Parts: sequence; C-alpha cells; structure tokens
Amino acid sequence: MPPETAIAMRPIGVIRTPYAALEGMPIQPGGARESLGQVVLDPELAPALADVTGFSHVYLLYCFHQSAGYKTTVTPYLDDTPRGLFATRAPKRPNPIGLSVVEVVSVEGNVLTVRGADMLDGTPLIDIKPYAPAFDAPAGPVRSGWLEGRGQTVGDTRSDDRFVGPD
Amino acid sequence: MPPETAIAMRPIGVIRTPYAALEGMPIQPGGARESLGQVVLDPELAPALADVTGFSHVYLLYCFHQSAGYKTTVTPYLDDTPRGLFATRAPKRPNPIGLSVVEVVSVEGNVLTVRGADMLDGTPLIDIKPYAPAFDAPAGPVRSGWLEGRGQTVGDTRSDDRFVGPD
Repeated sequence: MPPETAIAMRPIGVIRTPYAALEGMPIQPGGARESLGQVVLDPELAPALADVTGFSHVYLLYCFHQSAGYKTTVTPYLDDTPRGLFATRAPKRPNPIGLSVVEVVSVEGNVLTVRGADMLDGTPLIDIKPYAPAFDAPAGPVRSGWLEGRGQTVGDTRSDDRFVGPD
Repeated sequence: MPPETAIAMRPIGVIRTPYAALEGMPIQPGGARESLGQVVLDPELAPALADVTGFSHVYLLYCFHQSAGYKTTVTPYLDDTPRGLFATRAPKRPNPIGLSVVEVVSVEGNVLTVRGADMLDGTPLIDIKPYAPAFDAPAGPVRSGWLEGRGQTVGDTRSDDRFVGPD
C-alpha cells in the first residue's frame, strides 16, 4: 500500500488495569475474568457511553503501545510450534491493535468499569463496540485450529518476555 | 489525549466484496452470510496466513474509509431512538475502525477468501485475528441492550445514506 494511505488513529482514552508490567500478565480476558478495569474516556466523549450498560459485554479496541515490530511467524504462548501471525493474537502485529471482549460493570460519567480487562495498565483506547450475538456469534460450527483443546489453559497461562520490546 | 500520542496505522491489504456503494449494503455479516469476499494482503505478509485455515472464523479489522466525522449520539439502522455511539456499530466513530467476524473459506498465496464480507469493496485492511471461543465467547449470560430481539432483522436490513460522507 502506498504510504500516503496511512491512517491516523488517536487515543480516545486510557485503560486502567492491575497489570503494570508486560511479563506475568494474563494472556487473554479468560485469565483476567475477575480483574476490574476502568476505561477512562476523554470527557467530551462521555455522552457516547449512553446505552452501553444495556449490553453485558463490549469489545475494547486498543493499542499494544509497548509492542514494536513484528514477524510473520511467531510461537504463541499456548503452543510450541511456530504459527502464521494472523492465526495468533500475538501483540507484535503490522498494526499493533488489540481486541478484548470484556464484561460491562458500570458507567459513571466518562468512566466505563469492566471485568476481564487483560491489558497493560495505561493502554491507549481506540474504540468501544457493543457485543451482540446477532452480529458477532459465528453461524455454524466453530473450529479453533491449533488452539483447539488449549482453551482450558488460557486462564492459567501468563505472559513471559517474548513479545516485550522491539525486534 | 495530547496529539503527540497519535497512532499511525497502515493498510496491509484491501478487501474485495460485491458491495460497491455505501447505500444498499448489508449492515452486518448476518446480511452477507453468503457473500464471498477476498482479502488481498500485501504479498510480503503472505506467510502470516499460515495456519489460518485451521480456524473456521476470523475477525477482520478494517478502516471505514468513506466515513468521516462522528457524533456522540446516533440513530442506528435497527432502531428509531438515538443511542450512545459506543452502544452502536455505526461507522462514523472517533477512530473509524470496523470489525466483522467472517467465515474462512480458503487461503491461496496472499489471498484469504471469506464468507460473510459485509464491507465496502476496496476497504483497507488493518488486521486479521483468529476467532477462538476460549478468548472471544462471553462467559455467562449475554444481554444485547437496545438490540435485543432485533437480531432477526439484521439479515434483511440494508444501509441508507445516513452514514455517507462527512458530517
């Protein structure tokens, strides 16, 4: 793609979580089910949180702000075989965007409190979207490739240093 | 957020779909279940598609490239009441990122063919992530707020001109 098509995103808030360091973090919301996080939005966006508490879950889109660079093949936390990057959720990606489904707890002013926040404290927020099965639950049978059968270990697995810092 | 924290994203490919105009499109993958789309990646990223066909579904993250501006309150396609922007999937957002769960059909070289591509032809791709119930299926009961009970109409609803062009 020509560089002139670059897309400028801006952080619209910050995510506060109990996780201050990249090592030893949960690797997915399943490992942080009980962790409360606070999404502190830019105050002028507070009205956009109306109706959010009607939803049990939302997507948080955010920037992996401590990741830089990427490789097209990576060895994920839950496997010991190299996999294509787009078959993994590794944070080092061409565009370092993270995606987590979290549970909505409450909204107060410009602060959305959620359960299951698995990201680093201070993570820049990019977007919030409501989770709706009508849109988001796959139709038909689901196959999880190399992750099949490894889901049970998500909650117990913690990050190490493999995705820390630039390549 | 101070402007110096702006995040530069770059398109990593383009999504080819049958939908050439913003009006009359499906509003979600549910309205495009049978629509085949082709995700044409930058050729150097082809190795990152390894292992993707093990997954039945992936998330596509992309840019709503024909949307500009936003309002904190919008009236969505499936409702006639204004709702907080973050309780909707409307394309006009502070960061115009779209998210769709699509079915993986095949991978050939740098081209990923998917079913359920509900985005505009020529949409810039930002990321591909595997869908895994262990990460992405909400734990516990799901509530869909104002969307509750409206899911059945997603497949029949088409876009109009309300989100076309800048505000």
